[in-house]
Amino acid sequence: MRVAVIGVGCSKFGELWEMGFRDIMISAGVEALEDANLEGKEIEAIYVGNMSAGRYVGQEHIASLIADYSGLADLHIPCVRVEAGDASGGVALRQAYMAVASGMHDVVIAAGAEKVTDVPNAVEILSSCADVEWEVFNGANLPALYAMIARMHMRRYGTKEEDLAMVSVKNHKNATLNPKAMFRREIDLETALNSPYVAEPLRLFDCSPICDGASVVILASEDVARKYTDTPIYIEACTQASDYLALQSRRDITTMDSVVQASRKAYKIAGIDPKDVDVVEVHDSFTIAEIIAYEDLGFVEKGRGAELVREGVTMLDGEIPVNPSGGLKAFGHAVGATGIRQAVEIVLQLRGDAGKRQVDAEMGLSLNVGGTGGTAVVTVFSR
Amino acid sequence: MRVAVIGVGCSKFGELWEMGFRDIMISAGVEALEDANLEGKEIEAIYVGNMSAGRYVGQEHIASLIADYSGLADLHIPCVRVEAGDASGGVALRQAYMAVASGMHDVVIAAGAEKVTDVPNAVEILSSCADVEWEVFNGANLPALYAMIARMHMRRYGTKEEDLAMVSVKNHKNATLNPKAMFRREIDLETALNSPYVAEPLRLFDCSPICDGASVVILASEDVARKYTDTPIYIEACTQASDYLALQSRRDITTMDSVVQASRKAYKIAGIDPKDVDVVEVHDSFTIAEIIAYEDLGFVEKGRGAELVREGVTMLDGEIPVNPSGGLKAFGHAVGATGIRQAVEIVLQLRGDAGKRQVDAEMGLSLNVGGTGGTAVVTVFSR
Repeated sequence: MRVAVIGVGCSKFGELWEMGFRDIMISAGVEALEDANLEGKEIEAIYVGNMSAGRYVGQEHIASLIADYSGLADLHIPCVRVEAGDASGGVALRQAYMAVASGMHDVVIAAGAEKVTDVPNAVEILSSCADVEWEVFNGANLPALYAMIARMHMRRYGTKEEDLAMVSVKNHKNATLNPKAMFRREIDLETALNSPYVAEPLRLFDCSPICDGASVVILASEDVARKYTDTPIYIEACTQASDYLALQSRRDITTMDSVVQASRKAYKIAGIDPKDVDVVEVHDSFTIAEIIAYEDLGFVEKGRGAELVREGVTMLDGEIPVNPSGGLKAFGHAVGATGIRQAVEIVLQLRGDAGKRQVDAEMGLSLNVGGTGGTAVVTVFSR
Repeated sequence: MRVAVIGVGCSKFGELWEMGFRDIMISAGVEALEDANLEGKEIEAIYVGNMSAGRYVGQEHIASLIADYSGLADLHIPCVRVEAGDASGGVALRQAYMAVASGMHDVVIAAGAEKVTDVPNAVEILSSCADVEWEVFNGANLPALYAMIARMHMRRYGTKEEDLAMVSVKNHKNATLNPKAMFRREIDLETALNSPYVAEPLRLFDCSPICDGASVVILASEDVARKYTDTPIYIEACTQASDYLALQSRRDITTMDSVVQASRKAYKIAGIDPKDVDVVEVHDSFTIAEIIAYEDLGFVEKGRGAELVREGVTMLDGEIPVNPSGGLKAFGHAVGATGIRQAVEIVLQLRGDAGKRQVDAEMGLSLNVGGTGGTAVVTVFSR
């Protein structure tokens, strides 16, 4: 069964002090229902991606909570929370996609939400998506792990701090065109390169800000989709792959095998090549992750990722615009919401609804990564 | 596609001080692989139910961890953690079931695991599957919420503390016949009725012990199942329903609508009546929950649940043996593992592998509940 996106919604991303977890979630959900012209009773199942509501807001069992708080409890539909670190949103999307593709359901919500600003140790909690016993306990939190990845990429392939900074500059520039982005200001290369190290060689501007936010997409089977929208966006493939959780066990820390495997499978299912993709959202939790994603997704050969940003290929007016939304770096990284938020951006781009950041695109791709690549989800969209 | 269980595994349940989260998980997984005569490389996806590894052991992203630690990382298969309070295991089972039933995968692992004894506040964490803002914050933790359910059931239907105690006595007796149970000792009615109140009218012996443990079932499509086993046990239906998370929002706190809805749907899909079921595992997180389950599953009309335990109908030699394993009360309640552990028991019973607690059964049912009924999963098995 072909699967279409018939509605999207997204809260503002940022430090949403005035909103609780429930409010953030519902604001995105209502927007998506309105966008899809649904009342709510058409929904047959809900999948919600969330990394750590247990630690961030002290609440587990949140899928039931969301059905409750959104007024859908009387439907008694199955509501499932899925978790895979900051790939939780992508995994929720894939489960929802499978529920429709299999013919089991016709209209399904895939949501992602996270509220991180109620606690003082947000990064410590985020780092629990790395291997806590083997990595974090020894001081290797997420920035430190990505710093090791960056250092190895620099040594082996000649990638420079300037290249990393250019990713940040690009994504900040894109975010100025996105009303819902967290950081809507341009930065220049000098600012990025003069910012303090968080974990050498990664500076402040190489690290995405974890923040509050929620996103929702509503999926429907092709036949049903036409009842609700004239601009369905189709999901041509949605694949997931896993890898060793701890970096130390991987064969090569400059490649995420989960991304390679998931993307190759997605291309095969969709019947496309990397060059067929017109617009991309990747998981730039750290700038080095965007450069590695260029390579692992097959846009350029291994080691030459930095060239794409140096030559402007991935800029908004480049050949393959990457992170037109502003990416995790400048749109903000609401952890479990990010995978869905990326899908929202691709859908808006393919519909032609992306406003000032609109690019010309018929085929889009999103890549959501958990931790340092223990999980990867790749989704291919077409209009 | 018809779905069969081809292998089961279960760790001991209890205070497993000598084992970490990973060890517990793997011990159950290895047992299941051996039981199914699999090497491991046949596995196409893993679903793991876990409520709160984030708070219990400080580790999120555990599906990837499990693929890693079980030596399956090089397969790069999709690994998904699902969470729905203490119905996490049941929800994992259902997702795995859907993955096979849809024809997407042929061999899938459904696992559940929890390690709760590394922290001093295990019950507080468990209570985060109730509504933390509306219930727990005001002092209504899980025992208190179930106490309100019990009190209302007593007032409206005349259920007595003795009836609750008889559930506990029955389940303790069954557990003496189960080598993996946590509490393998009989108790008498007097002991139960003289134990201190935890939340009046619920006494110590009305409350299941949360503990460490892991369980695994391996599912396969019917055709593939025959390659690996001569005694496949079929899943005839696996349904899930949700409800308001907070008790205060429900139309009637003596009925779990999620259980009513999920079971009626399961009976319909399986083409059976409640009376066709020969053996049952229900979610007796508190003794009152077992009595309500009798009613909500349709074994007896609403309000008359206590009669079944008074008259011995649900004893091991009764007409409908319930919780032959010892139930959550005496086998132990390893939170996210429980839903899978229940499936393991039903499979053993239907295979004829249940040892001294064997009952005569062709059709079995398991009921896994999250919190006070925000989520319910009902699974019907046949041999």
